Amino acid sequence: MDLHRLKQQIEFVREVDKLKTINRQTLLIDASRRENDAEHSWHLALMALVLGEYAGGDAINLLHVIRMVLVHDLVEIDAGDTYCYDEAGYADKTQRETRAADRIFNLLPPDQATEIRALWDEFEASQTPEAKFANALDRLQPLMHNVFTNGRMWKKHGIIKSQVIGRNRKIADGAPDLWTFARNLIEKATDDGHLAP
Amino acid sequence: MDLHRLKQQIEFVREVDKLKTINRQTLLIDASRRENDAEHSWHLALMALVLGEYAGGDAINLLHVIRMVLVHDLVEIDAGDTYCYDEAGYADKTQRETRAADRIFNLLPPDQATEIRALWDEFEASQTPEAKFANALDRLQPLMHNVFTNGRMWKKHGIIKSQVIGRNRKIADGAPDLWTFARNLIEKATDDGHLAP
Repeated sequence: MDLHRLKQQIEFVREVDKLKTINRQTLLIDASRRENDAEHSWHLALMALVLGEYAGGDAINLLHVIRMVLVHDLVEIDAGDTYCYDEAGYADKTQRETRAADRIFNLLPPDQATEIRALWDEFEASQTPEAKFANALDRLQPLMHNVFTNGRMWKKHGIIKSQVIGRNRKIADGAPDLWTFARNLIEKATDDGHLAP
Repeated sequence: MDLHRLKQQIEFVREVDKLKTINRQTLLIDASRRENDAEHSWHLALMALVLGEYAGGDAINLLHVIRMVLVHDLVEIDAGDTYCYDEAGYADKTQRETRAADRIFNLLPPDQATEIRALWDEFEASQTPEAKFANALDRLQPLMHNVFTNGRMWKKHGIIKSQVIGRNRKIADGAPDLWTFARNLIEKATDDGHLAP
């Protein structure tokens, strides 16, 4: 056993615990509190298991999707969660997150640091079928939470329907049928008065 | 698209959100609060990615391990978290959890309900190399949290070293090198006065 290698891996496992303290702008479905990034990442991984058949195009590598969603928010340990409708926050998001990736992934042994960095880069680029599907889930999940909590966070932030459609349209790239489903959710939320037209 | 099937899948995705409200007897490493089952499941999945090379025996199927850890605690939505040193709680644990599995997994379309139930049964039986490794992670993670929070939860519950060894010895079945590492953690915690001898 290479003890130095194991110590690096354990240090990473210890560091990522902090993801549980990074709160998002999404409420739990029971509306009791805001969701954190670790819970969100678990939910996406489970959605990948259950909804994998809706990935567009050819058969996808499910393990690859799950690896991506498990690590996709780790950079927020340093960079924080940027609300998806926060234009100012998006201005320096890439810079903040790249710096975070450099620090956090490099806690690992070099081979694994490279591997996880590649997963994060692939997720961010959203070009491969697996990354497109992972990104679709990353949009669908908070959309569902917003709908199921009667749009409370949309109302709080003054978000309107066209913004929600603009943000979530990307679901179609990774999972066309789930976008059809999501469109119906958005229409219904608007009809029910939970999302401003 | 089979809309009835999708609706069943979405109902399951919605239901499992409740796992985020099931608190465990483990503290976050910053000791700010107790960990919940969803965060814990995410942490195990990430550990499987990073520590897979320590699985004992032949090469394991990593996707299979991750699928198991993602779903292994879902029954606690109904059955609650049973503290691992609670003998009374263990008396009817199987009965409570089986009833929960029957309800929760059957929200899914039948083929997926069968699949997830099989994953949970395999995890619980802990006989395959994948299940043994998944169970090893499920013990190692809270052990690390206990050590890194100076044994606060051990002290609170009056747990002593022989109990911790008895509980965690199973790590050796799934990941012998990680058990060597864990034994060292336990010795150090005892030497440091965080775990009663």
